[in-house]
Amino acid sequence: MLKVGIIGATGYVGAEILRLLSTRKDIEITTIVSNSFVGQPYSSVYPSLRGVFDMPCDELDIDKVAQKADFFITALPHGVSNDVIPSLLEKGKRVIDHSADFRFRDVAVYEKWYKAVHPAPQLINQAVYGLPELYRDKIKAARLVADPGCYPTCSILGILPALKEKLVSTKGIIIDATSGVSGAGRKSELSYAFCELDENFKAYGVSNHRHTPEIEQELSLIAGEEVLVSFTPHLAPIKRGMLATSYLNLAKDGVTTQDVHDLYEEFYKDEPFIRVLPVGQLPETKYVAGSNYIDISVVVEQRLNRLIVVSALDNLGKGSASQAIQALNLMAGLDETEGLLTPALYL
Amino acid sequence: MLKVGIIGATGYVGAEILRLLSTRKDIEITTIVSNSFVGQPYSSVYPSLRGVFDMPCDELDIDKVAQKADFFITALPHGVSNDVIPSLLEKGKRVIDHSADFRFRDVAVYEKWYKAVHPAPQLINQAVYGLPELYRDKIKAARLVADPGCYPTCSILGILPALKEKLVSTKGIIIDATSGVSGAGRKSELSYAFCELDENFKAYGVSNHRHTPEIEQELSLIAGEEVLVSFTPHLAPIKRGMLATSYLNLAKDGVTTQDVHDLYEEFYKDEPFIRVLPVGQLPETKYVAGSNYIDISVVVEQRLNRLIVVSALDNLGKGSASQAIQALNLMAGLDETEGLLTPALYL
Amino acid sequence: MLKVGIIGATGYVGAEILRLLSTRKDIEITTIVSNSFVGQPYSSVYPSLRGVFDMPCDELDIDKVAQKADFFITALPHGVSNDVIPSLLEKGKRVIDHSADFRFRDVAVYEKWYKAVHPAPQLINQAVYGLPELYRDKIKAARLVADPGCYPTCSILGILPALKEKLVSTKGIIIDATSGVSGAGRKSELSYAFCELDENFKAYGVSNHRHTPEIEQELSLIAGEEVLVSFTPHLAPIKRGMLATSYLNLAKDGVTTQDVHDLYEEFYKDEPFIRVLPVGQLPETKYVAGSNYIDISVVVEQRLNRLIVVSALDNLGKGSASQAIQALNLMAGLDETEGLLTPALYL
Amino acid sequence: MLKVGIIGATGYVGAEILRLLSTRKDIEITTIVSNSFVGQPYSSVYPSLRGVFDMPCDELDIDKVAQKADFFITALPHGVSNDVIPSLLEKGKRVIDHSADFRFRDVAVYEKWYKAVHPAPQLINQAVYGLPELYRDKIKAARLVADPGCYPTCSILGILPALKEKLVSTKGIIIDATSGVSGAGRKSELSYAFCELDENFKAYGVSNHRHTPEIEQELSLIAGEEVLVSFTPHLAPIKRGMLATSYLNLAKDGVTTQDVHDLYEEFYKDEPFIRVLPVGQLPETKYVAGSNYIDISVVVEQRLNRLIVVSALDNLGKGSASQAIQALNLMAGLDETEGLLTPALYL
Repeated sequence: MLKVGIIGATGYVGAEILRLLSTRKDIEITTIVSNSFVGQPYSSVYPSLRGVFDMPCDELDIDKVAQKADFFITALPHGVSNDVIPSLLEKGKRVIDHSADFRFRDVAVYEKWYKAVHPAPQLINQAVYGLPELYRDKIKAARLVADPGCYPTCSILGILPALKEKLVSTKGIIIDATSGVSGAGRKSELSYAFCELDENFKAYGVSNHRHTPEIEQELSLIAGEEVLVSFTPHLAPIKRGMLATSYLNLAKDGVTTQDVHDLYEEFYKDEPFIRVLPVGQLPETKYVAGSNYIDISVVVEQRLNRLIVVSALDNLGKGSASQAIQALNLMAGLDETEGLLTPALYL
Repeated sequence: MLKVGIIGATGYVGAEILRLLSTRKDIEITTIVSNSFVGQPYSSVYPSLRGVFDMPCDELDIDKVAQKADFFITALPHGVSNDVIPSLLEKGKRVIDHSADFRFRDVAVYEKWYKAVHPAPQLINQAVYGLPELYRDKIKAARLVADPGCYPTCSILGILPALKEKLVSTKGIIIDATSGVSGAGRKSELSYAFCELDENFKAYGVSNHRHTPEIEQELSLIAGEEVLVSFTPHLAPIKRGMLATSYLNLAKDGVTTQDVHDLYEEFYKDEPFIRVLPVGQLPETKYVAGSNYIDISVVVEQRLNRLIVVSALDNLGKGSASQAIQALNLMAGLDETEGLLTPALYL
Repeated sequence: MLKVGIIGATGYVGAEILRLLSTRKDIEITTIVSNSFVGQPYSSVYPSLRGVFDMPCDELDIDKVAQKADFFITALPHGVSNDVIPSLLEKGKRVIDHSADFRFRDVAVYEKWYKAVHPAPQLINQAVYGLPELYRDKIKAARLVADPGCYPTCSILGILPALKEKLVSTKGIIIDATSGVSGAGRKSELSYAFCELDENFKAYGVSNHRHTPEIEQELSLIAGEEVLVSFTPHLAPIKRGMLATSYLNLAKDGVTTQDVHDLYEEFYKDEPFIRVLPVGQLPETKYVAGSNYIDISVVVEQRLNRLIVVSALDNLGKGSASQAIQALNLMAGLDETEGLLTPALYL
Repeated sequence: MLKVGIIGATGYVGAEILRLLSTRKDIEITTIVSNSFVGQPYSSVYPSLRGVFDMPCDELDIDKVAQKADFFITALPHGVSNDVIPSLLEKGKRVIDHSADFRFRDVAVYEKWYKAVHPAPQLINQAVYGLPELYRDKIKAARLVADPGCYPTCSILGILPALKEKLVSTKGIIIDATSGVSGAGRKSELSYAFCELDENFKAYGVSNHRHTPEIEQELSLIAGEEVLVSFTPHLAPIKRGMLATSYLNLAKDGVTTQDVHDLYEEFYKDEPFIRVLPVGQLPETKYVAGSNYIDISVVVEQRLNRLIVVSALDNLGKGSASQAIQALNLMAGLDETEGLLTPALYL
């Protein structure tokens, strides 16, 4: 029985992690930490979990909390982990962190885009970027895993095969993506009010969204040279779901949609959560919402010799919570898919 | 390993049943029957199930289909079961039928409200109304279970303790309820189009909805006398979810909300899927959507000596698909909660 | 040219009033008052009005503001008008107030339900309840009009003809209603966040909603005796729109739906904004959203000798903003329908 | 008094045109033509217009219909106008056609993308593309105006100033856009059902959407050389609204966001319906839904020397219905803005 603690459990990512772990027979949730709700039953924060997680929230006292579990998933805001994660690691715990703090290899990049001093630069070298499709073996052995951002997961997995196989140029990559509202977290700001967002569609963070350098870091590592991208996020009135449309210049002429499709299918043939759709079908967020799947389609626009990749996932699934559990499974030596094969709700 | 076949599998109820059974290790889906999609992979109808249920749909040839499974869940339209269900039973199969055909004890009531000749009146006596909270033992032994309607499940379970314990009058009961759109099934009619329903709220079937006699039948059996109700359904722009607000006249003075709450809590204390909310809390459909739970709150309006009960469930969950699986578990001698404890998504 | 000022202009009701008045050629908006946005262009608060209302918001300095207009529409929270409205009236201005403060004839009722000391009880006698269908002539002459609540408008107009004509009993009236989210105002509370409300349906304020005594006051005046009602509001994931389903016991036997329909049609035949739908048709909020219309249907449930009335309006239209303008038109001696005949958007 | 007839009036574009014209005092709707609803009151098709347009629908008998009006707006499906429009023109009527038939200067382009023989190629030379910002004077004199598509209107107006002023390259233009569902028309297909689209986001028509050549035709005319674009449409669960994010390569270095903003503001300074947003603000569809406005923002991404333009309109407003009325105003010698200044609903 794996003992797992969740720190920062009352945001949407924490709630989704708990929902997904609630039916696991091989995992025991031994502490739910939330400073805002200390002593209150977790189910009073999320009444959907009434009768499921009625245990009270613990205070963030690292010494006490650390004794309760071997694995911790931390879902605290960026930058606040300066004490929590180093302390947990020092006490021999293994950690999956959902903040952006340990996603970057270069402290300067983090500090530039997040406009903050890095809370624990000494840990960067041991942190593993928690995308199993890129770093499966390293995740298995890691003591600190950085759960990737939702946009980076969706974008990188869509572009990876084409870039890795040198099918496309590293220049001129454009990623236009749309997220559901839960990606912003559980917020009481006016701009996330129902009446402000329902029946509304908008772009945001044009040319300056923080997921841009995260995407660029991984694409550069894949390509073996610097890759810069235009990345534009949008917000749609859906709770869950994310879809990225990526525009890539083909490196040579005469490549067909079928060619690219076959390459993608071969590339991902052993991946349990990546579904390359048949030629002519396109992803929809409802096909993946509530699941750990990511669906990918490719289309070659022959008039312009351009490859268009459409990829979709659940920002609370493969984009955050269930991907964290995938990493947990790997770190704990369990079957990577354990508890994660539930398909999307469709409705 | 239980062999289960689904007949009429491509509607929303069928799809939800398959989704819920997809991760069961004790159940094998051996045939998925759909005349409209014979030979096509089930996942082409519901791409969310790609890689999960890729088996082709079978034709509705009872002789062939019957050989493949021991239990069948039928989700065909009302009235078309005149051949299918009798044949399955004749061949020794056990059936959970989602149509209204076997929910009524009185053929005349069925024929009046459904404006049709009953397809198999000879089976009515052996059919069990599939509400475990009322008929658990009979369901265990049944060969034919009629999966209750969504509105009746939501209404009856909300009213049951008060009526059974003679807390309220049998006269003047009013049930005002609202459903999500999936309750109407997978339809291509204009009136169910996105642009017609989004940002829209309406009543329908005022004074003549077919779930009225189903509610009245069960409430009358509970009360031991004839109970008539005003039942008004409404449609809200949500995919899943149902909420009923029931107005009941208290039978005596001086009863408090706390009294009724305690009675309900005691009454339902052994029910795994009924949650009586604390005094002061009210159900929301998001607390139950995607689950088999039903949440119930009671409020005594002292000025008028009236009891108001608010009950909420997922019309595709406890209101149809997962309730059918609850019956299946009972019939097969399995743990009643097997595969059904996943909490609502909240998001 | 009528000079009109709006005080408390940055809530949703204020914004809707300004939108509706923006194309009026006979009305000049001379001051927009908002303490939170003093000096900022109104269109920075509602960018939809960019190029339409770019004038800066004024501070709430009664002496200065009062000089700018002859008519004021105040949309401040309940209870804060203790100074504003008396001062405006003292300076000879005419006021339409959207708060609940002047809707009640009995201070004690207000103070009990609103749990507050009344801000200006001396003005109650001169205040007119701003429902033109009940008080048209008084509104014309009024110096202070209390714009009715949305639920009361929807409920009262649905019940008025039946109650006035003694068709129904004054006992056992139940009103079950649903509102769009904008009815709660422009709020940044978590419970109004998109992710908390989208795809969700719930009841709230069961047995204690503040619109109950407002409904009871007017129904009692119509009936000539005390009328008490059970009133239960619900919240649907729509921005605009309200629908009430009212249950009334018929006072005698043998009344048909057609009888009631004809009575309603006759009763309302001169009302420009009330549409009694043909027998067999039911209101939908989309038929009225964005307009000043209210649609009403009647159904007699003969099994129970009960009349069910379904009425629908836009909570921001006939339920608040456009009804305030209807009162303004009357007070100013203009055509009552001026600027209010734009039909609902449907989409 | 202008006499106007609407042919093909029962789709969403027709309904919106009628809604917008319903309060015009200078226009009389003299015939509403719909073969599917001959003899039925128009308000039975759109109950929101009950009491507003109760006139019965006329049959499409050109001889009879033509006598009734001087101006016709036709909103028939593409390709069916082979008889209707030539006949109307022959009878001296002036026509605004909402189909794609007369938007193309090159019959071959139409026939390739629409996979159909052109219904009336002889009329192409006299047809004017109905975008007032490009062809205002020609529209005034035109006998046949082709109402532009929604995506082309949104894209072209976003790109026009930059392309016209040679600020950007004609190569590598990418337009990524999202539409509300009403853009597909009033359809009873399953793929437009509420349960299929709500809480869902998807791409469609990748690399082959029919609005692509329409955009390319006009951009080429603006640039004075051939312009090809990648255009990818998406569908969001909103009824109305459209937003395009266009990626353009700057033609020289050192251009700032402020530079481009100032150029756009100057370029569009006399346009009544184009709002260039201040630097730092981005369009949202709710700022324009229900109106004839288009909002445009520009952002220079300096790292990549790329210009990103975000433009938003209502696909039923400036994207179709109200733009047709703008053309009608111009053709009839009226004030171009007559009846079109109503701002968006915001809610």
